Amino acid sequence: MSHDLFENRKQFQLERMILFSDAVFAIAITLLVIEIKVPEGLQDDAGIWHLMHEKILEFFGVALSFAVIGQFWVNHHRIFGYVTDYTPKLLWLNLHLLFWIILMPFSSALNSRYGNFNSVWTIYCFNMLMIGLAMYFIQRYVLNPNKNLAVIAHEPLVRKTALARSFSIAMIFLLGLVLAQFKGLWSLMASRFIFFLIPFAIIFTKRIYQRKKGGI
Amino acid sequence: MSHDLFENRKQFQLERMILFSDAVFAIAITLLVIEIKVPEGLQDDAGIWHLMHEKILEFFGVALSFAVIGQFWVNHHRIFGYVTDYTPKLLWLNLHLLFWIILMPFSSALNSRYGNFNSVWTIYCFNMLMIGLAMYFIQRYVLNPNKNLAVIAHEPLVRKTALARSFSIAMIFLLGLVLAQFKGLWSLMASRFIFFLIPFAIIFTKRIYQRKKGGI
Amino acid sequence: MSHDLFENRKQFQLERMILFSDAVFAIAITLLVIEIKVPEGLQDDAGIWHLMHEKILEFFGVALSFAVIGQFWVNHHRIFGYVTDYTPKLLWLNLHLLFWIILMPFSSALNSRYGNFNSVWTIYCFNMLMIGLAMYFIQRYVLNPNKNLAVIAHEPLVRKTALARSFSIAMIFLLGLVLAQFKGLWSLMASRFIFFLIPFAIIFTKRIYQRKKGGI
Amino acid sequence: MSHDLFENRKQFQLERMILFSDAVFAIAITLLVIEIKVPEGLQDDAGIWHLMHEKILEFFGVALSFAVIGQFWVNHHRIFGYVTDYTPKLLWLNLHLLFWIILMPFSSALNSRYGNFNSVWTIYCFNMLMIGLAMYFIQRYVLNPNKNLAVIAHEPLVRKTALARSFSIAMIFLLGLVLAQFKGLWSLMASRFIFFLIPFAIIFTKRIYQRKKGGI
Repeated sequence: MSHDLFENRKQFQLERMILFSDAVFAIAITLLVIEIKVPEGLQDDAGIWHLMHEKILEFFGVALSFAVIGQFWVNHHRIFGYVTDYTPKLLWLNLHLLFWIILMPFSSALNSRYGNFNSVWTIYCFNMLMIGLAMYFIQRYVLNPNKNLAVIAHEPLVRKTALARSFSIAMIFLLGLVLAQFKGLWSLMASRFIFFLIPFAIIFTKRIYQRKKGGI
Repeated sequence: MSHDLFENRKQFQLERMILFSDAVFAIAITLLVIEIKVPEGLQDDAGIWHLMHEKILEFFGVALSFAVIGQFWVNHHRIFGYVTDYTPKLLWLNLHLLFWIILMPFSSALNSRYGNFNSVWTIYCFNMLMIGLAMYFIQRYVLNPNKNLAVIAHEPLVRKTALARSFSIAMIFLLGLVLAQFKGLWSLMASRFIFFLIPFAIIFTKRIYQRKKGGI
Repeated sequence: MSHDLFENRKQFQLERMILFSDAVFAIAITLLVIEIKVPEGLQDDAGIWHLMHEKILEFFGVALSFAVIGQFWVNHHRIFGYVTDYTPKLLWLNLHLLFWIILMPFSSALNSRYGNFNSVWTIYCFNMLMIGLAMYFIQRYVLNPNKNLAVIAHEPLVRKTALARSFSIAMIFLLGLVLAQFKGLWSLMASRFIFFLIPFAIIFTKRIYQRKKGGI
Repeated sequence: MSHDLFENRKQFQLERMILFSDAVFAIAITLLVIEIKVPEGLQDDAGIWHLMHEKILEFFGVALSFAVIGQFWVNHHRIFGYVTDYTPKLLWLNLHLLFWIILMPFSSALNSRYGNFNSVWTIYCFNMLMIGLAMYFIQRYVLNPNKNLAVIAHEPLVRKTALARSFSIAMIFLLGLVLAQFKGLWSLMASRFIFFLIPFAIIFTKRIYQRKKGGI
């Protein structure tokens, strides 16, 4: 076996971990819909439209969960675009992330059916907080310059920006979790709107990065 | 990390997006059958054949949905055969497509069980219209010559033909949706037969392409 | 885009079709178990063992379906080991195969629950016959020397042997289907044991191949 | 078709088997959660928290099964990092492993719901024992120096260490199965804690390896 084949194999081993993650992401994202059941015994078009009217909030719940898992998948895709090697610990950090991903169909179904309960929103935000933290732990690990797992780990400003962004996304879900503890319509709505903070967090960290970079 | 490795990685990042899509397509297409349940308490062969007789329309519904998702997968396969790069926006356009794909097991189950209701056919056509439009948006984006994501984007005639084809498929589902609004057997049958227009649309756009190409 | 990249892409397009098939195979094979439900309300160890005793035939049914789908997957793996190119028609022939694969969880659940009915065994064998024929159609297509899709297509003896093997496997399931039409224990058992003919068919076609090859 | 393409294809055929396994692993691991249902008719936050309190053991059961399947996946990933070729027999040994993997959602659901029954723990340990043995058979096959499937097969000490580790993991599950035969709290707890022996087995075999290697 030549040196090239070994190099190839090492790269395939990394790709295998990534594609395994994608399979889990894909299944979790597709199972979101499986909880929306087609009831028996509907009699006419009015019955169907009534059903769709009832289910509309469940569909919004699915769309929200899809968008959040999608966002995490895009993050995962971006992070591993820079990773060039793996360690057994990285495999486990990634499995830790996937554990919280596979719980999403449950949290999402709970949210779709009982979304107006503070407790349910607490559970939902907790699940996403754990995904956010798991993603942050992965990023902190692969960007550790001593581990030599990613090229950009050797550029302090890039590293700090990436970690700040990742951490701030996790903190947004913590905020949602805290807001869900207060009773009343105001807190419930506020805790829902935390998702719109994510693009701001991304733009904000990018701005700071560009300012600091320009300052050098 | 040499330049080659970076090139490799960029290509893997694109392939990852494609294989993730395939996983979602594969799960959605396999879950179509999960809604056809095996009932308990059947007593003899006559009971089994009676069940199969009852279920036959559900199987046709599954076959139709399979063919439509299959057709979209073949389109996706063809389009990404020409794509050589990706952007974050392409990831999201693709996720948008996948969102409508994961709703198919629900729409298909609804159609299998209540296929003779205009409302159900409306929902089914709406789902497919959204898939068709999502596919069109992807194609319009990757064929934008300014984005430099696909080689064929720089051949105006090829680009226009591809977009015309993609758009006409979406419009066929819009036609189905419109036809489903009229009561009566005639419109219901007409709206079912729109699927047979798809091969004509493909052949028709190909003919125009060949005529125009010959004319130059 | 250099010539090498195009070559790479063509190969990836073929690999994509194969990996998509694998995803469908994998989901269908994993869903076999989903039909074996864990009942509620069991009181003690005796209840659990009684349940397992009742379910034992369902597990054998799952094991049988797993072995058959596994066998077809191994065939698919072997066939596409020789394929070097693809056409749109091959994509559709492969989708046709996958359609019969996704029906397996249904046929298998039916067989697990009502395996002693002739009608069920007829349906089960019919599903496998269709998989066998779909596999044969794929093989006949890729081994057509005019299509230039596989290197071995240009060796008549190899081609004929591969097709004979593929066709004989389909015919074994046809035999099972025919035997399932006769009432009585004898025919039911005979139609079950057809599976053991598969290794014989494989060995037999190999022998003939070796004798003919030696004769040249 | 040049020699390089054949080499490429052989490697892809091996990778295909690995990615197919990953798809099955990914689906089995994601289906673990599907058994935790969201009940209807909950009235308030107290009802939700009561539900979560009831389900907490089921979540621990899912986490345990996730960790065990995850551990086996990491093993599979490590083993196939050294494999450079395949045979039809290896495909079947791998399918044998996957058969026991797809039974995990059933065993895990049984354990989540009736985890305090000796019978259930027996079934759970039996399933994992079979996975452990299937893994051991794969490893013994690919590390057979006569088969020429893995480079490290030619280093006797590495081979023996790998096999000892693999075998000891299987034996830990056999121990759990034996302990589950004794009635009483003591044996039930002991049989649960066998999982903590796995890291010790890994560290222990590594120590012996290092001592022996140092001694040469």
